[in-house]
Amino acid sequence: MKELRGGVCAPRGFRAGGVRCGIKGSSKKRDLALICSDRPCVAAGLFTTNQVKAASVLVTREHLAGGTCRAVIANSGNANACTGEAGIAAARRMAALAADFLGIQAEEVAVASTGVIGVPLPIGVIEAGMASLGASLRADGEGHEAALEAVMTTDTRKKDGALEISIGGVPVRMGGMVKGSGMIHPNMATMLGFITTDAVIRQDILDRALRRAVARSFNRVTVDRDTSTNDTILILANGAAGNTPIDTEGEAGEAFAAALEELCVKLARAMARDGEGASRLITVIVTGTADEETAAVLARSVAASSLVKAACFGADANWGRVLCALGYAGVPFDPAGVDVRFESSAGSVPVCRGGRALPFSEEEAKRVLSEEEIRIRVDLRPAGGGSPGPGSASAWGCDLSYDYVKINGDYRT
Amino acid sequence: MKELRGGVCAPRGFRAGGVRCGIKGSSKKRDLALICSDRPCVAAGLFTTNQVKAASVLVTREHLAGGTCRAVIANSGNANACTGEAGIAAARRMAALAADFLGIQAEEVAVASTGVIGVPLPIGVIEAGMASLGASLRADGEGHEAALEAVMTTDTRKKDGALEISIGGVPVRMGGMVKGSGMIHPNMATMLGFITTDAVIRQDILDRALRRAVARSFNRVTVDRDTSTNDTILILANGAAGNTPIDTEGEAGEAFAAALEELCVKLARAMARDGEGASRLITVIVTGTADEETAAVLARSVAASSLVKAACFGADANWGRVLCALGYAGVPFDPAGVDVRFESSAGSVPVCRGGRALPFSEEEAKRVLSEEEIRIRVDLRPAGGGSPGPGSASAWGCDLSYDYVKINGDYRT
Repeated sequence: MKELRGGVCAPRGFRAGGVRCGIKGSSKKRDLALICSDRPCVAAGLFTTNQVKAASVLVTREHLAGGTCRAVIANSGNANACTGEAGIAAARRMAALAADFLGIQAEEVAVASTGVIGVPLPIGVIEAGMASLGASLRADGEGHEAALEAVMTTDTRKKDGALEISIGGVPVRMGGMVKGSGMIHPNMATMLGFITTDAVIRQDILDRALRRAVARSFNRVTVDRDTSTNDTILILANGAAGNTPIDTEGEAGEAFAAALEELCVKLARAMARDGEGASRLITVIVTGTADEETAAVLARSVAASSLVKAACFGADANWGRVLCALGYAGVPFDPAGVDVRFESSAGSVPVCRGGRALPFSEEEAKRVLSEEEIRIRVDLRPAGGGSPGPGSASAWGCDLSYDYVKINGDYRT
Repeated sequence: MKELRGGVCAPRGFRAGGVRCGIKGSSKKRDLALICSDRPCVAAGLFTTNQVKAASVLVTREHLAGGTCRAVIANSGNANACTGEAGIAAARRMAALAADFLGIQAEEVAVASTGVIGVPLPIGVIEAGMASLGASLRADGEGHEAALEAVMTTDTRKKDGALEISIGGVPVRMGGMVKGSGMIHPNMATMLGFITTDAVIRQDILDRALRRAVARSFNRVTVDRDTSTNDTILILANGAAGNTPIDTEGEAGEAFAAALEELCVKLARAMARDGEGASRLITVIVTGTADEETAAVLARSVAASSLVKAACFGADANWGRVLCALGYAGVPFDPAGVDVRFESSAGSVPVCRGGRALPFSEEEAKRVLSEEEIRIRVDLRPAGGGSPGPGSASAWGCDLSYDYVKINGDYRT
């Protein structure tokens, strides 16, 4: 596996671009993006589970129903949600505008929006900006960067990646971008993710690979109930690599799925790190459960806890908050069989064994927790003896650097 | 129904007191409280659903098993949670110390703790402070205040109340105190609530009245999963009023239950208002659902939303966030049948009808939302026509006045 530059333009046959068309009013920021393939693609997508769905989500689900899609048009500055029939018409119009420019069918275009809810999408400015959007398309990293900038809202960093693997000796590439910050609380912002690949792959294999990768990446930074009206993740596979078709979940399928998972984990970690005001990336690792999903639920509960996050901001080894967050996660475990340690590149400090305090050096713990990347490791076992379960999972979050951590970050000392 | 002063000392036959014994180290603040009745009481309690339960919770549940209890000893500065067998022994010792002083059985004493998790409870300083704690007992409002101060941690206001009702012509009193702030995120702090009453009432009627009152008050400011290791609500009824015994849920039982609900709602609203840094009390009212519980789930989801709270801080009528929070609440409703209005003493502004934007004056909305008490009213109905359901419920929260609202509070405009 080799890291590449160029994001969604790293795979062959993809172009991207982004412009300012005026959705964000007087702001000078880009607000309209286009990503497209020079040939048809198989595609898969995952969407918000919120009952209130943006018009873009409804239209894109419809367009993706056949498992194909070769372009994505996306805007920031307006969510096109709670906008009724006019919103649906506007989303369809966006797809049609892109399709007309590219000379393809509107049904081959996905639409994504992020921004304020309940305000009519100014389709006129998008229409007026279409020519310059088309002109901005490039097959290199600059095109990717422009598209990425055009979907960012409160994001403070660009979050992207690309990599190459070998499928039967043929190099296959994939690249992606993700928009969404404020992961300090997981419902702070819409998440949009666009991934491209030049793999030749059957649609159902692609779909399953995406579901698995998302379950182990983006769903590990987001508590399920906290999805916005617009959350969307898409993957487009255009087959330009010319590899032997991936049409089973055998060796090639597994290699593809593992690479996609690695890319998604990279993007998910970048989202967690980009929490508004965040100063640390927190990885929570839970082991010893009956299965992976149980471990994931526990890890997410710790990563989502405001109290744990506030303690991390203060570099305060307040492990009691970790136990508290495990305790309300809603899955059974034995409180008397919990070991907790804080880790980072500065060291590893066991703080709790069997659900009870261990003596530790506050100074050493502070040093470990003062790093930019820290890990909270939770190992579970039956308190009465016996082997720990085989389940394990990681979840990602960031610290809370708000004013109120002045109150809570030092609560323990 | 008549409001009284004096909190837990308003009902006849109760005394309370509080002192500084040194659990909080060098702090000058009170940290040990005692509330007691001059005669036996029937009692009921509700406790945290967290799997990790403090020693005080485990011991108090045991002591309350018979439905009686006549004193509560409580400390702040140490949660006595994750402290193993030594913690259990310390909690038992606290009960025994209070019982010895009062000349009653240890099983008649409830124990409650709040503070840092995982640090051994310094039972020695409690033992040493017992005599002065006993000496601090008073039957008036000053005793109540001292006890209340001794259980406060990050609370910025005293939260208490008392009232009198008539049962068959006999005045019956009840009074309460509650500790718990930081309700900005519901898991920010332990909630302890102690309620006294001089009613003559059968234990099972008392127990049901408490469950109903808590379901409609404290559980409407707290999302279930976010309970601390120590949350405890207790009610003691000593019968000193001499009313005809309340032994059915008929008229007298209903009058008692309604009064208890009113007292608990007052205390719950005070907790919501005491969120760290909070500037507004937010009441979310949901109507038109099939039943009360469905309305409560939706109302809680809106009241708990960081985005809604941030908008309220900015007095920003960002109703899209209300729809978003309804949408991920996990109960079905028709997005096209949602009406939303913002209300306060400064007016009432409809902002959404049938799930879509209504034109409204931003200036008027800002004025309405700038009040200290604001209401978000959500009326649901079948979008296709037909009558709204009979269910309705309120939930309480506060705004988010953190630094990050500088980013999110003005996101829409």
